[in-house]
Amino acid sequence: MAKFLTNKEENYSQWYNDLVTKADLAENSAVRGCMVIKPYGYAIWEKIQAELDRMFKATGHVNAYFPLFIPKSFFSKEAAHVEGFAKECAVVTHYRLKNDEDGKGVIVDPAAKLEEELIIRPTSETIIWNSYKNWIQSYRDLPILINQWANVVRWEMRTRLFLRTAEFLWQEGHTAHATREEAVQETEKMINVYSDFAENYMALPVIKGCKSENERFAGAIDTYAIEALMQDGKALQAGTSHFLGQNFARAFDVQFTDKTGKLDYVWATSWGLSTRMIGALIMAHSDNKGLVLPPRLAPVQVVIVPIFKNAGQLESISEVAGNIKKELEGSGISVKYDDRDNNTPGWKFADYELKGVPVRIAIGPRDLENGSVEIARRDTLTKETISVGSVLPHVTSLLGDIQKNIYDKALQFRNEHTFYVDTWDEFIKKLDEPGGFIMAHWDGTTETEEKIKEETKATIRVIPFDSPMEAGKCVYSGKPSERRVLFARSY
Amino acid sequence: MAKFLTNKEENYSQWYNDLVTKADLAENSAVRGCMVIKPYGYAIWEKIQAELDRMFKATGHVNAYFPLFIPKSFFSKEAAHVEGFAKECAVVTHYRLKNDEDGKGVIVDPAAKLEEELIIRPTSETIIWNSYKNWIQSYRDLPILINQWANVVRWEMRTRLFLRTAEFLWQEGHTAHATREEAVQETEKMINVYSDFAENYMALPVIKGCKSENERFAGAIDTYAIEALMQDGKALQAGTSHFLGQNFARAFDVQFTDKTGKLDYVWATSWGLSTRMIGALIMAHSDNKGLVLPPRLAPVQVVIVPIFKNAGQLESISEVAGNIKKELEGSGISVKYDDRDNNTPGWKFADYELKGVPVRIAIGPRDLENGSVEIARRDTLTKETISVGSVLPHVTSLLGDIQKNIYDKALQFRNEHTFYVDTWDEFIKKLDEPGGFIMAHWDGTTETEEKIKEETKATIRVIPFDSPMEAGKCVYSGKPSERRVLFARSY
Repeated sequence: MAKFLTNKEENYSQWYNDLVTKADLAENSAVRGCMVIKPYGYAIWEKIQAELDRMFKATGHVNAYFPLFIPKSFFSKEAAHVEGFAKECAVVTHYRLKNDEDGKGVIVDPAAKLEEELIIRPTSETIIWNSYKNWIQSYRDLPILINQWANVVRWEMRTRLFLRTAEFLWQEGHTAHATREEAVQETEKMINVYSDFAENYMALPVIKGCKSENERFAGAIDTYAIEALMQDGKALQAGTSHFLGQNFARAFDVQFTDKTGKLDYVWATSWGLSTRMIGALIMAHSDNKGLVLPPRLAPVQVVIVPIFKNAGQLESISEVAGNIKKELEGSGISVKYDDRDNNTPGWKFADYELKGVPVRIAIGPRDLENGSVEIARRDTLTKETISVGSVLPHVTSLLGDIQKNIYDKALQFRNEHTFYVDTWDEFIKKLDEPGGFIMAHWDGTTETEEKIKEETKATIRVIPFDSPMEAGKCVYSGKPSERRVLFARSY
Repeated sequence: MAKFLTNKEENYSQWYNDLVTKADLAENSAVRGCMVIKPYGYAIWEKIQAELDRMFKATGHVNAYFPLFIPKSFFSKEAAHVEGFAKECAVVTHYRLKNDEDGKGVIVDPAAKLEEELIIRPTSETIIWNSYKNWIQSYRDLPILINQWANVVRWEMRTRLFLRTAEFLWQEGHTAHATREEAVQETEKMINVYSDFAENYMALPVIKGCKSENERFAGAIDTYAIEALMQDGKALQAGTSHFLGQNFARAFDVQFTDKTGKLDYVWATSWGLSTRMIGALIMAHSDNKGLVLPPRLAPVQVVIVPIFKNAGQLESISEVAGNIKKELEGSGISVKYDDRDNNTPGWKFADYELKGVPVRIAIGPRDLENGSVEIARRDTLTKETISVGSVLPHVTSLLGDIQKNIYDKALQFRNEHTFYVDTWDEFIKKLDEPGGFIMAHWDGTTETEEKIKEETKATIRVIPFDSPMEAGKCVYSGKPSERRVLFARSY
């Protein structure tokens, strides 16, 4: 199996595509730009959902569901928002098909034209704020802390599995607050939830910061993002949290009476994380043998493969394997025992490496004699032999080690690919070879940002929260700068 | 609060609408026929999802996700299917908006017309079988046992919250098998999963059976359904499982090589259950004070309400309440402690009755003195005083009792409203007053079925699996019949 993967050093993009399809994560569908998320890929999304949902609820949020359709006129209400999303949306114009009179299948029934076209939601601020208008009269109705798990559609012209698809799955939080301060705090809280999730579950070190004006969400006052570095030196935006100010409240006329009896517009945030994260997970950790999944998000954490020549051997091995499986599952570890007899152990080893299963336990006749098993870890591809009696403590601590090692490796890679540059020559040089995160001074103007993008395809990913104030000169214009910002080419 | 509910005996339909909106379950949105599922309603859906998902996985199924869009031409491939769904579907014809030159917002960009229109999925057989074509070559690739949690759209003209909405949430299982027998077994297995779920979680007694040809799913060979009786004497279809034969495999040319090397078309099933079930839950159990939720699906199982006159009393009560909450939660019971001081205890009692919280614990100053609490159950509206020390065992057994009592009550109601009738006069009479399930002989023809529907609005809900063979005469035509079938008016 694994031999069919393109080497990532040869062609990173092809390696990624090979991996997504051969590891059975997803594939393109008959509908341009839309993917089918296959069971193994969806199982990873379910793990992501379960952890995030728990984190959202622990921070006081509840789930709800708003319509897929947004009346066209809603879009016009927030000027920046429509500008940002109108160019890439799917439009429903009719509500019925009818039989073609020529007998050639079905056609759209021209009599069933909608009075007002409906947009498939690219994001739900407008339809949600239109509802909030009826829910909010007084400060007592605030805050509203709602999240929605949903599909959204953005009609992207160039699509890639998980990274950029016309339809994708995500969660979108939409909160309403009585004060600016509280909304800003919520925006910060949720970017912290995302970075906690990225670092502790996805084993993905991220840089938190603000977007520049140019890269902000359409309709936001401020956009916070977490940015992760992929193995080809490109950045991937892995979650965003927006402070929307009173923009949507004004657009939908959502006012409330505050404690002093004064009318004011409601303050808003929104925040989202999508199936794109599966793309990040793949690109950050995997190798030429396949996926490397952090144990906390792996659908199967341990696979047990029997090595046998006949039914008698299989029976004896299955007894030991069954006990180990039961013992590990009793500690909340997910285990698969693969006793299929139509594939060789070697084929299975390669297949589970391709699938990124963190721990593999092999049991053969000699192991039975010795009361041992062979344990291999996916991240380092190393093996060791341990006694059957110590499998549980060993595997438990091994899963923790693997989670940590994957993170450490990604962090080391990022450290080795983060460059503090002070000249334009160096900027271009590092960006091309080896690529990575470029910390450089910027004069703060959109003009300079756009010129840098034109010349190098690099953009300001974030102005990192922890970037210290430090007087310097803009790497492009030479004008004064107060701090370094993070540049990179990105997905 | 509760006083604003219309009495169900006066106007059942208005009672239902009042309940859905006043209990904060859902509301109509700005988009015709589409609802907003509010947090409390969505929390019930999350409980339904969690239990069903667990049951699907326990029976060997995995989740995946297929595109929202279906190319129009896919619909034409299965004749009955297109006939059944073409009349009520949302059609995407364009993929871009642009600014109106008159400056009046945005208009659909005529230059962005799709070559082939896309249908928003009303159900996913076609897009899924188009994928399965690439996944299945040999019997070794079978069975495929996939479920999808998704939104679907059916452009209904007359909509009602939860019961019939243009967009709704559901799960749809789509399985592929090597033999007819195995596919039939799967169809049966899943209708049994649904009836198990309905009876043991929703506390909803159901009749399992086959649909008549007329009521079958568009494209199915056989449709199994579970039917439940609502308090107004109407039936509600609460889950269907379809044996699709080789219809979709033929339409999408999905063939496989069997063990003998022979090519054959793949056998299929599909099965679904939707947010409609929340409508069933409401209509089957609730009363004029509000919702009555079975404990196994109640988002909050126990609410604790303090009764206090001053901060000192509240503090002492909160200590006791906190301990009880912790103790109950430790046993997996969900508990809310409502110590808000802007509403009276009486207001809260009515509100939690409206919301259907199964158990209410009230603690006042006298309870503190006596080491007791007052426990009220929602289903019977009865109260008793028990000692603080026995709260956990008492509540644990009470939740079980309530679950059983709600089921028993619904079963008794159904028994009292199931009529074995042998004459047409009696058929009409019972159907009108008191309404309910009518078990009557039918001659097996679509013609008779349609005439009965025209004259009475009653349809054959199912031919019950457990309806014994019994020679008789059709209640309408007088022609011979082999068994009774279940007639009712329905949602």
